[in-house]
Amino acid sequence: MAKTERALIVGVGAGLSASLARRLRHDGAEVALASRNIDKLAGLVKESGARAYRCDARRREDVAALFKAVDQELGGLDLVIYNPSQRARGPFVDLDPTEVEQTLMVTAYGGFLVAQEAARRMLKQGHGSILFTGASASVKGYAQSAPFAMGKFALRGLAQSMARELAPKNIHVAHFVIDGSIGKDPEGEARLDPDAIADTYLHIHRQPRSAWTWEVELRPWVERF
Amino acid sequence: MAKTERALIVGVGAGLSASLARRLRHDGAEVALASRNIDKLAGLVKESGARAYRCDARRREDVAALFKAVDQELGGLDLVIYNPSQRARGPFVDLDPTEVEQTLMVTAYGGFLVAQEAARRMLKQGHGSILFTGASASVKGYAQSAPFAMGKFALRGLAQSMARELAPKNIHVAHFVIDGSIGKDPEGEARLDPDAIADTYLHIHRQPRSAWTWEVELRPWVERF
Amino acid sequence: MAKTERALIVGVGAGLSASLARRLRHDGAEVALASRNIDKLAGLVKESGARAYRCDARRREDVAALFKAVDQELGGLDLVIYNPSQRARGPFVDLDPTEVEQTLMVTAYGGFLVAQEAARRMLKQGHGSILFTGASASVKGYAQSAPFAMGKFALRGLAQSMARELAPKNIHVAHFVIDGSIGKDPEGEARLDPDAIADTYLHIHRQPRSAWTWEVELRPWVERF
Amino acid sequence: MAKTERALIVGVGAGLSASLARRLRHDGAEVALASRNIDKLAGLVKESGARAYRCDARRREDVAALFKAVDQELGGLDLVIYNPSQRARGPFVDLDPTEVEQTLMVTAYGGFLVAQEAARRMLKQGHGSILFTGASASVKGYAQSAPFAMGKFALRGLAQSMARELAPKNIHVAHFVIDGSIGKDPEGEARLDPDAIADTYLHIHRQPRSAWTWEVELRPWVERF
Repeated sequence: MAKTERALIVGVGAGLSASLARRLRHDGAEVALASRNIDKLAGLVKESGARAYRCDARRREDVAALFKAVDQELGGLDLVIYNPSQRARGPFVDLDPTEVEQTLMVTAYGGFLVAQEAARRMLKQGHGSILFTGASASVKGYAQSAPFAMGKFALRGLAQSMARELAPKNIHVAHFVIDGSIGKDPEGEARLDPDAIADTYLHIHRQPRSAWTWEVELRPWVERF
Repeated sequence: MAKTERALIVGVGAGLSASLARRLRHDGAEVALASRNIDKLAGLVKESGARAYRCDARRREDVAALFKAVDQELGGLDLVIYNPSQRARGPFVDLDPTEVEQTLMVTAYGGFLVAQEAARRMLKQGHGSILFTGASASVKGYAQSAPFAMGKFALRGLAQSMARELAPKNIHVAHFVIDGSIGKDPEGEARLDPDAIADTYLHIHRQPRSAWTWEVELRPWVERF
Repeated sequence: MAKTERALIVGVGAGLSASLARRLRHDGAEVALASRNIDKLAGLVKESGARAYRCDARRREDVAALFKAVDQELGGLDLVIYNPSQRARGPFVDLDPTEVEQTLMVTAYGGFLVAQEAARRMLKQGHGSILFTGASASVKGYAQSAPFAMGKFALRGLAQSMARELAPKNIHVAHFVIDGSIGKDPEGEARLDPDAIADTYLHIHRQPRSAWTWEVELRPWVERF
Repeated sequence: MAKTERALIVGVGAGLSASLARRLRHDGAEVALASRNIDKLAGLVKESGARAYRCDARRREDVAALFKAVDQELGGLDLVIYNPSQRARGPFVDLDPTEVEQTLMVTAYGGFLVAQEAARRMLKQGHGSILFTGASASVKGYAQSAPFAMGKFALRGLAQSMARELAPKNIHVAHFVIDGSIGKDPEGEARLDPDAIADTYLHIHRQPRSAWTWEVELRPWVERF
């Protein structure tokens, strides 16, 4: 890649965004990070040189402002990754409807808002990748976890619809089913090492368009499935 | 069934609710119909003797009030069916975020609100069926149709999570993938006759619990899939 | 149904074929049963008045002879059901290749042979249903059970391909995912009652063609999935 | 990788095996190729320095002899890839049962025989990857193509069952859904470039075990799905 790559990672969680930012910076890319809580990003920003943006992905104005700022400060994005999610667990009849709504908004609607802003720019520039982080709950609705299933199923529907529409326009849309918990586990490798996940994200991002993947699942070797 | 069966059908559309109401009334059941637009129900109410309730399924207060009224006027429900959905179609980058949010709210969040009120009552009485109407878009995200895919995927995730949690508590949760357009088509039978759909809904509702179905798809014989 | 219905059930196992035969006879149908071991059928034949045919479904000549005999003795079939399967279980590296091959032959290839003879006749007469009995292993490959997964996945591929080709020619092809063990369990209903399964088979067989089901899963209310 | 990697590729077709062999040789691996028709391999053997073995994967003795020869001439395998398949197409009622049986044997049973020999050795040495080449027909049964669907569905069942059993024993089993035709297409990139497919195969093979993929699909950007 002669040209500097530019990436935006939305949502900071169990280490995946940090691994992605480090790998991308290591490969020479410019990286922007967006999160509701910008303070959480301080260490990573300092370490990696990525830029940090405050953004509540559920809010249309926030997402529009984020992309405007990135337009000016980074320029055209080659890669946008959407990670945020929220969970509300418990017996179905005890779930708080407000939390259910928020789960849908953070997990799925925010993904729509971010992806739409990304797609507009990528259609103009003629290329780009949009990656979505899913979970086991994207393809299996577990007991006592209806809101998370609703949000993650919805995000998968979004990603699949986008892939069918945008792939022939040279935008690579991919969905990752992360089946297990993320974290460093040097002894048993029983959790998904975020660096390993990041490697597969970047592999998918860099696939030549003659052989694109829409969906890939990742799990630790010892995870039951 | 010695005892009178009681059913609530939420959402009135292409004829399915009307067919369900007629079949249920024919079998001697008491039927309640709920819709945002109660005027649309007048003919059916007159014909079938069903009761009609105004309810915007996205609104928590509306759904609570609906169930309270049904509690008093019908009594415990054996069967609740959730039909509402909304579509927003078009090129992905042109979709109106407000319509996307509404689509999610009507298609999926309303299903949650109705199902939660239903499940509370059914857990107390020890039995009941909750049926959800899905579409081809429940399992396949089509181009230019991301919002509908998001809503219908989410509804499917809700139904699957509920089935895993509530089936062992004697509540039968089922999801129907309606693959094609609904309507009378006496010549070619190329559309799903709502009476035929209703027959399968009621068959699933009446399955003995030793052999319950969680999901079933229905399509016209000539529909490509 | 003014005209007498005619059905052929291939494979006799945990009670499903017996339940199907009884229900069909009760509804006035003529029933033929085919099995490798015809002695097993004696009781059922006596009780239900069904005809019994010896047939090893893996053998082309056997299947051809079966259909020829049924042509002469019953006439055109409205319904053909394929049940046979075989299991070879154990650690993957210890599986006996001969058993793996037999499992494939009984579970999938026999299904092809029977379905092809059935489809030829049904295309000529212009209608008919062909139903396949699958298992949880049709959609999930379990550890230490590769041969059964191979056979049942293959049978599902057969059924899906047939449905896409033959539905528009008025032949209803359906596949049943039986998720649990079959048997009478009057106390807990924790096993699939074969009478209950048979009811859903016959419901699917009798669906009007404007709303056909290709696949349906059945499991006891307390079965984990 | 300090140690020399050793790989066996079974089946030679539309260029994928050649691309895999070249990439592996480029990375310093020892490569063995096996095919029914060893003459087809001459050019590739000369170019890449891979070894060629004659093997009909449907025949137990052939597969046993292949592994014995590889044991002696290459040593322990880190990677085994199974590609062979056969197609029999046409109207369902016109399919030749002999071809249907052969399709099942080549596409699925041969995969079992090869994978079992591979797994025995990999369990002893404590590691290894076994990769299976699937097709769109692995997950969708197309009209007029029942035999291919039977074979490819069965192969997928095999791969899934193996993954559940062998992943916790440090053997990485993966299944690739190749959705489109393979070949060089420098102008439109409308076919899957075999070099691009090979890159993803090797990425999956080299994933650290904390984040393994079981299944991944690949298709050209313009392929409908």
